[in-house]
Amino acid sequence: MNQFEDLKQRLVEFARDRDWEQFHSPKNLSMALIVEAGELLEHFQWLNQDETYKLSPEKLKAVELELAGILIYLTRIAGKLNVDLFAAALRKVGLNEKKYPADKVRGSAKKYSEYEQP
Amino acid sequence: MNQFEDLKQRLVEFARDRDWEQFHSPKNLSMALIVEAGELLEHFQWLNQDETYKLSPEKLKAVELELAGILIYLTRIAGKLNVDLFAAALRKVGLNEKKYPADKVRGSAKKYSEYEQP
Amino acid sequence: MNQFEDLKQRLVEFARDRDWEQFHSPKNLSMALIVEAGELLEHFQWLNQDETYKLSPEKLKAVELELAGILIYLTRIAGKLNVDLFAAALRKVGLNEKKYPADKVRGSAKKYSEYEQP
Amino acid sequence: MNQFEDLKQRLVEFARDRDWEQFHSPKNLSMALIVEAGELLEHFQWLNQDETYKLSPEKLKAVELELAGILIYLTRIAGKLNVDLFAAALRKVGLNEKKYPADKVRGSAKKYSEYEQP
Repeated sequence: MNQFEDLKQRLVEFARDRDWEQFHSPKNLSMALIVEAGELLEHFQWLNQDETYKLSPEKLKAVELELAGILIYLTRIAGKLNVDLFAAALRKVGLNEKKYPADKVRGSAKKYSEYEQP
Repeated sequence: MNQFEDLKQRLVEFARDRDWEQFHSPKNLSMALIVEAGELLEHFQWLNQDETYKLSPEKLKAVELELAGILIYLTRIAGKLNVDLFAAALRKVGLNEKKYPADKVRGSAKKYSEYEQP
Repeated sequence: MNQFEDLKQRLVEFARDRDWEQFHSPKNLSMALIVEAGELLEHFQWLNQDETYKLSPEKLKAVELELAGILIYLTRIAGKLNVDLFAAALRKVGLNEKKYPADKVRGSAKKYSEYEQP
Repeated sequence: MNQFEDLKQRLVEFARDRDWEQFHSPKNLSMALIVEAGELLEHFQWLNQDETYKLSPEKLKAVELELAGILIYLTRIAGKLNVDLFAAALRKVGLNEKKYPADKVRGSAKKYSEYEQP
């Protein structure tokens, strides 16, 4: 069992042991996920871009737990909806590779910000 | 190499090939992540909780890509900050297991919503 | 001067007095706004819809401050970009009134959730 | 009647005419609000801070509608919960003025980012 399946299983047990599955609808879990994402942004909101690469050890530790929270809820939602997260991610990367051909994008005068997505 | 490292590596190459690393500060990536999370919520916002378990095939497909987008940016941020995502997630679950002991939580009259986090 | 202009002016003075204008780019303010929005959702995430109408006095007080935070950052962004917020809101309502004609929408079998937006 | 009460009233009528009040729980409206906030961030995510002050006319028009969307949902939530938004905002500004005394904050070596909130 890989680390992702391992995490998924542990989260199922965590919820079952506490009788919390009833609260974990995809709707509610998506809210919990974006709440964690908001907490992540809170660490970065007043920093300039360079500063967000070199966080203090305390801040980095807090950021790690926000990232962990996002992964936890992402894993839960994927589990509830029977989505293979990694397969979906690889599919999305493949779509983006076609949508933004490296040789056209790199040399292009078109601003990155005009691309909808990386 | 596991599937997570594989995805991480592919995303690094994707950004390098397009000269997009310059845009991918943790700050910007955190914004991109929450934008994807918002798109995820958009699918669920007017549904009741039960409905969010049984999405139509088209909607599920769209939801899959939003989840993929979140995983992609999460992986990128973790890479930029040298965070071991899965180790952090397991640490967070461990903290939650202690914070909310199953035997006390399950039988408790205290509402789940009063707990800060699952 | 109306209450909105009054709030706007007071926020400009607040930032100037502290030499904080330098941090208040539209980009940063938009992050601060969504952080507040996340804090709002945190109060609602595990509640069912009915419960979110009848919050305890303490919770309502906290929710009020989150709503206030959102209004504050919204006002700041509008000020920075010279946007007339209320004119824009009335324009958007007008667009929605045309997009979703009451007589067609009300009797329609089409699910509300299929509409992009109210 | 001021512009805010006017907007509030028009939104109530809009929802009633379409029989949409049933979907507009504070929970759902908070999700709709953060979805709009995410769309706002999407315009800013790859721009540097300076660029977010000088948007193209098309982009500014789109941003205006996102800001409008946020104001609309904010107004709706406040209406549902009987919150006086402007009173709450002024109360919050007052709290912040005390929390961050201008003379101490301005001259301080303490980084702005260490302050929780402006």
